[in-house]
Amino acid sequence: MKNDLLLRALRREEVSRPPVWMMRQAGRYLPEYQELRKKYDFFTRVQTPELACEITLQPIDIVGPDAAIIFSDILVIPQAMGMTVLMEEGKGPLLPATIRDERDILKLTTDVNSSLNYVFDALRLTRKTLDGRVPLIGFAGAPFTLLCYMVEGKGSKGFEKAKTFCFTRPELAAQLLQKITDATIVYLKEQVNAGAQVIQVFDSWSGMLAPADFDRFASPYLLQIADAVHSSAPVILFPKGSSYALDSLSAHPSVSGIGLDWTVKPQTARAVTQNRVALQGNYDPIKLMQPVDNIQQEVHQMIRDFGTTGYIVNLGHGILPHIPVDHARAFIDAVKNFKS
Amino acid sequence: MKNDLLLRALRREEVSRPPVWMMRQAGRYLPEYQELRKKYDFFTRVQTPELACEITLQPIDIVGPDAAIIFSDILVIPQAMGMTVLMEEGKGPLLPATIRDERDILKLTTDVNSSLNYVFDALRLTRKTLDGRVPLIGFAGAPFTLLCYMVEGKGSKGFEKAKTFCFTRPELAAQLLQKITDATIVYLKEQVNAGAQVIQVFDSWSGMLAPADFDRFASPYLLQIADAVHSSAPVILFPKGSSYALDSLSAHPSVSGIGLDWTVKPQTARAVTQNRVALQGNYDPIKLMQPVDNIQQEVHQMIRDFGTTGYIVNLGHGILPHIPVDHARAFIDAVKNFKS
Repeated sequence: MKNDLLLRALRREEVSRPPVWMMRQAGRYLPEYQELRKKYDFFTRVQTPELACEITLQPIDIVGPDAAIIFSDILVIPQAMGMTVLMEEGKGPLLPATIRDERDILKLTTDVNSSLNYVFDALRLTRKTLDGRVPLIGFAGAPFTLLCYMVEGKGSKGFEKAKTFCFTRPELAAQLLQKITDATIVYLKEQVNAGAQVIQVFDSWSGMLAPADFDRFASPYLLQIADAVHSSAPVILFPKGSSYALDSLSAHPSVSGIGLDWTVKPQTARAVTQNRVALQGNYDPIKLMQPVDNIQQEVHQMIRDFGTTGYIVNLGHGILPHIPVDHARAFIDAVKNFKS
Repeated sequence: MKNDLLLRALRREEVSRPPVWMMRQAGRYLPEYQELRKKYDFFTRVQTPELACEITLQPIDIVGPDAAIIFSDILVIPQAMGMTVLMEEGKGPLLPATIRDERDILKLTTDVNSSLNYVFDALRLTRKTLDGRVPLIGFAGAPFTLLCYMVEGKGSKGFEKAKTFCFTRPELAAQLLQKITDATIVYLKEQVNAGAQVIQVFDSWSGMLAPADFDRFASPYLLQIADAVHSSAPVILFPKGSSYALDSLSAHPSVSGIGLDWTVKPQTARAVTQNRVALQGNYDPIKLMQPVDNIQQEVHQMIRDFGTTGYIVNLGHGILPHIPVDHARAFIDAVKNFKS
């Protein structure tokens, strides 16, 4: 491993500078990705290991982060569980047959790995091609976030249908969340077998839950996953918008890192988590539209605010399609030229 | 004043039970409002004092909250400043000519009151018709939230255009925010002259800002408004999603109350604000889909968690159109039958 900064940051070892990567770093802001996007539809890109590998490596070559994250999608799990998932370019996902009752839940399978070989093949190929340049991150969607899509059927501002399902049929919700959790655990363990060295779990919609509801519908399943996976690879949880959960999640020994969105003050996050976990984040991706000098200055300040130990520089959410590549590179370079 | 619970809660006086009202309580969940909606378009409803008064009073008669809030819209200010604002039923606002540069800002007027007489007439009529049953709340959108619409031109998931404007042209953004602030202050003072007894300022989109950016683009203008208005009427600020700002806003003596969305734990909000302000909120509106027994139980727990002094029961966001009226009433009744 030529660059193990990410692994060391997750162990909270001292480092010369923190590692940096960007959520959605393999994505639409890269012209090289746009070229592949013209030629191959979304699921072809995801399901062809050579393409997924190529896309995963693009940002490593072009902007130079300290970690690669396998190109895939959180909705491969609902798909592997038996649901139809359609993806229209630029329009987001559509699940035409949503989960409405127990019968729908019983139809889902947790035996997902047999249909997800393309992910494991992509991980093996990418790990081999990376040849130790940087660590390889595998990932999955968190059970609550996947429930949101499986019940709502599509992206939504408030996921009212999904939340109503949870609040009015909590036993059914628990049954569905447990089934997603079981499938996710076997999936993530196999990702590690195939070469993933770190696992991130994206709870993109947990922030729509009140703290007490997070404790019912999100946290128990996140922690089951961390408990099951952490002996194989360090686990980063990213409960977007749920800064209220920092204390309880960081107290859990199987959680190595927590991702933060940009609404959390670094100093507050450190105080609450008491150096029990590494923290990752949390630059507002829209701020990458600023002049590169401002970006560098703010990134340096962010590193000083978080401290260099147990810290992974990242955005607070995925990089946006219209960010100039030079600005993405300026973000990465600012970390690389940081002097404490 | 037959029911002054809201005013006493804002002064943090002891009360037998906390007051309760609901954001968007005059709205689409009421069949009586839907009837008027069929007959009159949005701006007719807003700009006809008799209709605005009737709509404002509907929830007082039907579900019985402890305050009335004048039926209007935050976008009357951009409109009165000279912008075209279109409202398509069920589709949200559209501002076809957005603010792009200094010339657009210079064209805006801060002399807004002459074109907003319909609001003041509606307040006078409503205050008179209420005849002291409950206090009357006036309101405005916060400058940052109005900037979002004026620059973006419509509702948006991330208001990327508006935020990019702020981050890349901060001096222009400050100029626009100050102009909105000036207009809002004269508008709110006249609302109080016309009968508003409490003022709420809605910063619906401030939660999209990182704490340091909130301190630049939201907080100074919110506090200018509070400073200018509080000697006429108590001011409640509702910076949705900005729980990181609770400490600094509550430390400001001209702020009487702070509204909370449902992601804030009552105990945390109390600890941070140290009884310097009244707190208002913060029940997740989607939870009103639960059986009424659950609603009552959770509302009682929420009151115990916040404490009865300096507390105004409310939702954490506007009530949703599909909430059954009985469930809205159960929310109100739960507060009325609360025994400490």
